[in-house]
Amino acid sequence: MPLAHPWRDPDDDRPRLECGVFGVFSVEQASAVTALGLHALQHRGQEACGIASFDGQRFHYEKHMGHVGDAFAGADLVDRLPGASAIGHTRYSTAGGSFIRNVQPMFADLEAGGIALAHNGNLTNFLTLRERLVSEGAIFQSTSDSEVILHLIARSRKARVVDRFIDALAQIEGGYALVALTNKKLIGVRDPLGIRPLVLGELDGKPVLASETCALDMIGARFVRDIEHGEMVVCSDKGIQSMRPFPAAQARPCVFEYVYFARPDSVVNGRSVYQVRKRMGRRLFEEKPTPADVVVPVPDSGVPAALGYAQASGLAFEMGIIRNHYVGRTFIQPTQGVRELGVRMKHSPNRAVLEGKRVVLIDDSIVRGTTSLKIVRMVREAGATEVHLRSASPPIMYPDFYGIDMPDRDKLLAARHSLEEMASFLEVDSLGFLSVEGLYWAMDAGQRDAERPQFTDHYFTGDYPTRLLDREIAEGRNDLVERQLSFLVSA
Amino acid sequence: MPLAHPWRDPDDDRPRLECGVFGVFSVEQASAVTALGLHALQHRGQEACGIASFDGQRFHYEKHMGHVGDAFAGADLVDRLPGASAIGHTRYSTAGGSFIRNVQPMFADLEAGGIALAHNGNLTNFLTLRERLVSEGAIFQSTSDSEVILHLIARSRKARVVDRFIDALAQIEGGYALVALTNKKLIGVRDPLGIRPLVLGELDGKPVLASETCALDMIGARFVRDIEHGEMVVCSDKGIQSMRPFPAAQARPCVFEYVYFARPDSVVNGRSVYQVRKRMGRRLFEEKPTPADVVVPVPDSGVPAALGYAQASGLAFEMGIIRNHYVGRTFIQPTQGVRELGVRMKHSPNRAVLEGKRVVLIDDSIVRGTTSLKIVRMVREAGATEVHLRSASPPIMYPDFYGIDMPDRDKLLAARHSLEEMASFLEVDSLGFLSVEGLYWAMDAGQRDAERPQFTDHYFTGDYPTRLLDREIAEGRNDLVERQLSFLVSA
Amino acid sequence: MPLAHPWRDPDDDRPRLECGVFGVFSVEQASAVTALGLHALQHRGQEACGIASFDGQRFHYEKHMGHVGDAFAGADLVDRLPGASAIGHTRYSTAGGSFIRNVQPMFADLEAGGIALAHNGNLTNFLTLRERLVSEGAIFQSTSDSEVILHLIARSRKARVVDRFIDALAQIEGGYALVALTNKKLIGVRDPLGIRPLVLGELDGKPVLASETCALDMIGARFVRDIEHGEMVVCSDKGIQSMRPFPAAQARPCVFEYVYFARPDSVVNGRSVYQVRKRMGRRLFEEKPTPADVVVPVPDSGVPAALGYAQASGLAFEMGIIRNHYVGRTFIQPTQGVRELGVRMKHSPNRAVLEGKRVVLIDDSIVRGTTSLKIVRMVREAGATEVHLRSASPPIMYPDFYGIDMPDRDKLLAARHSLEEMASFLEVDSLGFLSVEGLYWAMDAGQRDAERPQFTDHYFTGDYPTRLLDREIAEGRNDLVERQLSFLVSA
Amino acid sequence: MPLAHPWRDPDDDRPRLECGVFGVFSVEQASAVTALGLHALQHRGQEACGIASFDGQRFHYEKHMGHVGDAFAGADLVDRLPGASAIGHTRYSTAGGSFIRNVQPMFADLEAGGIALAHNGNLTNFLTLRERLVSEGAIFQSTSDSEVILHLIARSRKARVVDRFIDALAQIEGGYALVALTNKKLIGVRDPLGIRPLVLGELDGKPVLASETCALDMIGARFVRDIEHGEMVVCSDKGIQSMRPFPAAQARPCVFEYVYFARPDSVVNGRSVYQVRKRMGRRLFEEKPTPADVVVPVPDSGVPAALGYAQASGLAFEMGIIRNHYVGRTFIQPTQGVRELGVRMKHSPNRAVLEGKRVVLIDDSIVRGTTSLKIVRMVREAGATEVHLRSASPPIMYPDFYGIDMPDRDKLLAARHSLEEMASFLEVDSLGFLSVEGLYWAMDAGQRDAERPQFTDHYFTGDYPTRLLDREIAEGRNDLVERQLSFLVSA
Repeated sequence: MPLAHPWRDPDDDRPRLECGVFGVFSVEQASAVTALGLHALQHRGQEACGIASFDGQRFHYEKHMGHVGDAFAGADLVDRLPGASAIGHTRYSTAGGSFIRNVQPMFADLEAGGIALAHNGNLTNFLTLRERLVSEGAIFQSTSDSEVILHLIARSRKARVVDRFIDALAQIEGGYALVALTNKKLIGVRDPLGIRPLVLGELDGKPVLASETCALDMIGARFVRDIEHGEMVVCSDKGIQSMRPFPAAQARPCVFEYVYFARPDSVVNGRSVYQVRKRMGRRLFEEKPTPADVVVPVPDSGVPAALGYAQASGLAFEMGIIRNHYVGRTFIQPTQGVRELGVRMKHSPNRAVLEGKRVVLIDDSIVRGTTSLKIVRMVREAGATEVHLRSASPPIMYPDFYGIDMPDRDKLLAARHSLEEMASFLEVDSLGFLSVEGLYWAMDAGQRDAERPQFTDHYFTGDYPTRLLDREIAEGRNDLVERQLSFLVSA
Repeated sequence: MPLAHPWRDPDDDRPRLECGVFGVFSVEQASAVTALGLHALQHRGQEACGIASFDGQRFHYEKHMGHVGDAFAGADLVDRLPGASAIGHTRYSTAGGSFIRNVQPMFADLEAGGIALAHNGNLTNFLTLRERLVSEGAIFQSTSDSEVILHLIARSRKARVVDRFIDALAQIEGGYALVALTNKKLIGVRDPLGIRPLVLGELDGKPVLASETCALDMIGARFVRDIEHGEMVVCSDKGIQSMRPFPAAQARPCVFEYVYFARPDSVVNGRSVYQVRKRMGRRLFEEKPTPADVVVPVPDSGVPAALGYAQASGLAFEMGIIRNHYVGRTFIQPTQGVRELGVRMKHSPNRAVLEGKRVVLIDDSIVRGTTSLKIVRMVREAGATEVHLRSASPPIMYPDFYGIDMPDRDKLLAARHSLEEMASFLEVDSLGFLSVEGLYWAMDAGQRDAERPQFTDHYFTGDYPTRLLDREIAEGRNDLVERQLSFLVSA
Repeated sequence: MPLAHPWRDPDDDRPRLECGVFGVFSVEQASAVTALGLHALQHRGQEACGIASFDGQRFHYEKHMGHVGDAFAGADLVDRLPGASAIGHTRYSTAGGSFIRNVQPMFADLEAGGIALAHNGNLTNFLTLRERLVSEGAIFQSTSDSEVILHLIARSRKARVVDRFIDALAQIEGGYALVALTNKKLIGVRDPLGIRPLVLGELDGKPVLASETCALDMIGARFVRDIEHGEMVVCSDKGIQSMRPFPAAQARPCVFEYVYFARPDSVVNGRSVYQVRKRMGRRLFEEKPTPADVVVPVPDSGVPAALGYAQASGLAFEMGIIRNHYVGRTFIQPTQGVRELGVRMKHSPNRAVLEGKRVVLIDDSIVRGTTSLKIVRMVREAGATEVHLRSASPPIMYPDFYGIDMPDRDKLLAARHSLEEMASFLEVDSLGFLSVEGLYWAMDAGQRDAERPQFTDHYFTGDYPTRLLDREIAEGRNDLVERQLSFLVSA
Repeated sequence: MPLAHPWRDPDDDRPRLECGVFGVFSVEQASAVTALGLHALQHRGQEACGIASFDGQRFHYEKHMGHVGDAFAGADLVDRLPGASAIGHTRYSTAGGSFIRNVQPMFADLEAGGIALAHNGNLTNFLTLRERLVSEGAIFQSTSDSEVILHLIARSRKARVVDRFIDALAQIEGGYALVALTNKKLIGVRDPLGIRPLVLGELDGKPVLASETCALDMIGARFVRDIEHGEMVVCSDKGIQSMRPFPAAQARPCVFEYVYFARPDSVVNGRSVYQVRKRMGRRLFEEKPTPADVVVPVPDSGVPAALGYAQASGLAFEMGIIRNHYVGRTFIQPTQGVRELGVRMKHSPNRAVLEGKRVVLIDDSIVRGTTSLKIVRMVREAGATEVHLRSASPPIMYPDFYGIDMPDRDKLLAARHSLEEMASFLEVDSLGFLSVEGLYWAMDAGQRDAERPQFTDHYFTGDYPTRLLDREIAEGRNDLVERQLSFLVSA
């Protein structure tokens, strides 16, 4: 349930993903390994982070607002979080507000021992479950949907933790990748459709779970395989056991991981994100060519598609926009003379390659269009004679409910306007989007199967892969606002 | 269940009380009023403090390690914690360890709304209840016994919060004063025997609850009456309702509030603490006189008894020991030349009135004897020719289970030694304690009723006012140590 | 030049002293010993503190806002500030504003090595010297008068540090006690009249310098003697050398050290502060008796005088006002019902001994009268039938220029009003001050020598012991305001 | 005098520049404008930053360790640092150690008013001047060479600040760009050879000074011109005055600004940094071609040269190395399995474009070679069949003394080894450097004038543009180590 974020940069209309998850079992200095893994997943959530470790007797955890490198670098980490097993989480809040009490991993003492849980994704029946649990006497520590899973596990009548976990999974709906740590096991679960990613790696013979392969690369672990859709893996001293707690279903992973979220050096569901993006650019040129002098990416996410576009078109690829790596959050906008400051905090025009040029500007996607407009203006002010904007993904017309933080439908530029209206709003000489077919081509996935699409692409098509229970109830009674989650406004 | 405290000053063997509680209903700037009230109750718990307020729609809370004056002074307090009702808590941890997650008030979202709870005292069946609740699927946020009460309330099948509260009270045992805030009510409860104190005041016609009257004086509120033993008061817009949820019993308040804990300017159960202490000193002289030149209190708690002793004896009262008001916690003890540093951090000898004198040294009580020994030595080093130590309370021989943090029985000086042995250990020329009878005389309570004592005086007599369920079970299975409380070691 | 203080409690009109100084030479863990010494001198300055140590090769320093116990407790102190020699300073700003850059000790690299300096007192020709030095190209780091001394030392043409120091002393005027540390020496200086105190102690055969003897007691050092007026002691590996850099003069120490500043357990210039205060109380009764029921001190500084008054009068001494040891700075004053909050933050009435009584209230001194008025009202509200206020010192009618922070003359109650007007303003039934003669009697100093007074008592008499150069110039040109000190407003 | 840095990443052997400077005069919210300008100059110094403002009456400053976005974002900035004129500084310490007391701007009160100074560069006679000033009685606040300039100004006998400034300039040697603020003027100075850059811009008609044009772009200011070598500009209410305080000389700006330091979107001395870098890549291909499949930059500084190389060669440009934008400083290197962690914290291999490929790897320069080696290994581990390393600048063989922090000569790879040895050390299939002639070609500067080189290129040629006084003296007496700077080890 995407909620407004108090300090989000209002100039930034990028979609955001909520989380990265990571876990290791039976390695030395597990918390240090986890800190590195989370550092590699920082792009999946920059708001907060947490690590829970188990030292053979007890659990330890720390949660922090801010970046992994600020929170978990430091030579005393393995003393603060001792043990040979650990899980971690990077967070961008989509559900529950940005309070420290919502930072994961979450922990519960069960009768048989402790359990820590980290969760990437969003439950589509979160509020329905929470209301039921509260009516039964459960006390929630947070307003996060992840805690619902913990309560379901705690209340299961099953004896073994794995069975309690399966009990809980039977009740939740949505898209998720879960990593959990008990006093004996590291558990990983991917939702029945595999909407959110999760991979298995191996470090010196010991299991590693991570949202993306780049986290394996960071710690020098070997990639073993993707956790499959609907699969639960249970790592213990006896090895790795694979289970199938859900009814059989066809996979339908989120295509937006390729468009924007995943790091270009990650391999998601067997496909190089970088190569998919380059193919998007290549196809984009084929579908939407234009006479021009230079191809300029909106860095960094637009770079691979721009390279693909440039290589296909034979046009020169140039870094016409420079990304500022030092980003401060809330600089004052001085009253005098300073215009379009927000966009310049992150991007600056490279006048030397823009002046007097016809520019093809490549971005990964267009959401509200407000940032795009500022970039277009910046490029023009730097002397471009023509600006042709190309989006390496189709028009975004529907919101997401599986862990991507997008604006409501009425704020999505493509949901409200024709191509001409959009071009006019964006002040471009021409505008083009990749087609849905082109997207599937770039994925090397063959034709889109309209009955059973190979990916979930609901932001472009409105074809949601699951029912949306909370939303349906909300549309019935029109009151599912944040304040219902808790009467407590607090850290 | 008194636990060892990580940073407690090892030189300090004073008994400690865990908490002060405070609540106001329907006043402007309730959190600011509560901060002042807590400031006046700072002596009841200096480790941590918290305030929860209700703004008519939502609850707000803040919890801090440290003093009220550091945490809750500041002009933005009423913005941070808005609303016309608030409760607060100062804490010295007796149960659950000194983690921020144990700081009160505790909060829960119930179906009908939120509830915040602050608790002074100790439940004697805490672990038994907690084990049952965890086996039923309750997830505990803390290791504090106070949270048990919240879970019992959340799980009650009753509809109204007051009825749920009564359900919970029926299950808990021990000594306690509770203050709770819901979206409509401020609730105060005192345990069936009235072991812990709680008073009702009135500020501009609105109700105030506080552990001691000094908190009413601080905010300029009028003292109305003590909450009675076993009484529950429910303050709402309709006024104050008094309820009696427990079976009838005779009151048996804690006598140690008079001996040491309560502030001298407080009136507890209708008696001025200052005057009771002076009467203890007067009676102490009558029971244990000695030829001497000066009467010197161990400041500050020994001052009233020393005044009583001096007035009764006609000896000169002198401030022979000066208290240092600026206390740092963990100064390094330099290796060279510095002896008995710990005691000098807090007290220094006033040589001008000790040198060449026979000194009667008056302390409120003697626990381990280690601090007393250091003070005696300090007084002798300053030139006293004789030191006669007098304790204004009887010998402490039994531990407490109702919220006073005392050492185990085998560390209590009087539990292990004869008067002669104690005098020898303490290096005094003579030693005397007030008798239990003298204590009751000082309380102006008549003869102690051996069948139904008017106060609980178990530290002196071993006569506990309730059963001690957790302790009985622990003695059976010998394992009720802290680590059972949670598998999580954490803030 | 006393300046307004930004966060000073406006309800507190006590005079304040600026500093305590401390130094040790050639002891193990010198910084830890210094921290303890400063802790004992905390009452002489609670705003900031600093320590400089010398490890045989280099100097180290730390400066902090706040208390010694917060800044310099901690097991890593001797690693942070290593070495066998150290000096320290507690500060209450009288000159220069409360910026961290003004916190002492101050340090300078000279050609021959480093020098650190700590200073208690005030230079009466500070601005004149500073202006000259700036015109000569000196760059000031602070707005403190202490830095002037450092620049004078740095600019001296003499080769040896001791000679440079003497050069500097020849140019400064006012009241001061200095402690300085070089790479070979610990130096202590007391101004020609001995206005500010300084004592020499001995810890395991090594020299210690401190503002008061209570700092020697804290570290277990033996008191050796007062540094004499106009004396300079130079401690080195060769022992202690005493020098007399100034023309001979008669001592004239500050009498206010006895009235208010020094700790009661200190011995200043050979006199027990506690006993002097008791004698003030005794004489006060003789000069200004009144029929009454109880004698009540304004704690803590009024306690010894009240004991003296009570013993002389035979009236009962009672702690009718309780001091709150936990003081927060800027609690919000809630709008509702809370009156006279400021005074209650520090003092609360002990109704049990005030109600229905005729009270003699003993305070050490009366400055503005605003705090006294609040206390009088508080005592009356608690039920006193009569309040007779007695000041254990004469009326304060003139400002100080030697390191005591007092209000301007037009804010001093006694400077503007007759005794009757004061009694009316203070809402008391009677008012009495100790006479100047009585003060000298209490000091056991014989008759005041009007030509050459034995003490400086200018606050009472207007008889200043030195010329006041800055003030004379300022009265000539009427512009000596703070902003002249520096064009920089900063930390 | 480059000094070792306590927390510098030991894996990072990039050269570092010490500073960026910025100043504005007579604009609204000058400190906010300055914060933005510094943010754009963050790449010139990430260790610390400071801003000084003048409000028409007084100066204000703040100095912080860390980034501009952390220190100076925030809505209260213009209240903390009010006024219409401000200067700022970003710092990477090359001289004086990384203490907060060394952070700039530095400030001094002169007789005529205050002066704040910010300095980019390094004085080659710093120690000589400092020793002279200390012997004359100057007290240094810092160990920074910038403070020497302040003392020279303070001690000048000239009346007007501009004349005092010129007095000071006559005594200093080295490379520097200075920005100073007085109560009436904003002053900018570039050293006689123009080694360090400084530009003049205009914001709504008011002057702006900045190290690079990218800072003008950030605030929306118009670029006016470079400050010329040896030029002093004085901005006041009367406009901008240009002065020539030095003897005439030919410009000789630092070529390393183009190679590495300046941002690619900046225009330095009339040349686009991005275009110069692209030309370096183009020429590098011409000088050192090799058969290969892909051209891969070491991001971000190698990107433009790699584009130039790819465009010239016709080879595919690919982002084969991904830069991690979230960099933590001191992650623990877990003992198990994690190799070459340091380099992976910043860069990760993009296996999809490296596997099975012959790679031309383009870096801007090679200093120690240790980072290059790690990157080469990482590229090979990702599957590259051949690695051909090309440096877009000539071999670095001599240290810098003008503000670039480079290792000593014996640590420079090219200073100690032949090309073959370097290729072997770096484990590459081939290695090539741009020639010095190629560098001048890329600069579009014609042939290098051996007598009077158009740029200073001493890192490549050993041809230093000025005498090196401190170094000459040090070589004579072999003792110019850091500890001489101050006897104080401190913040």
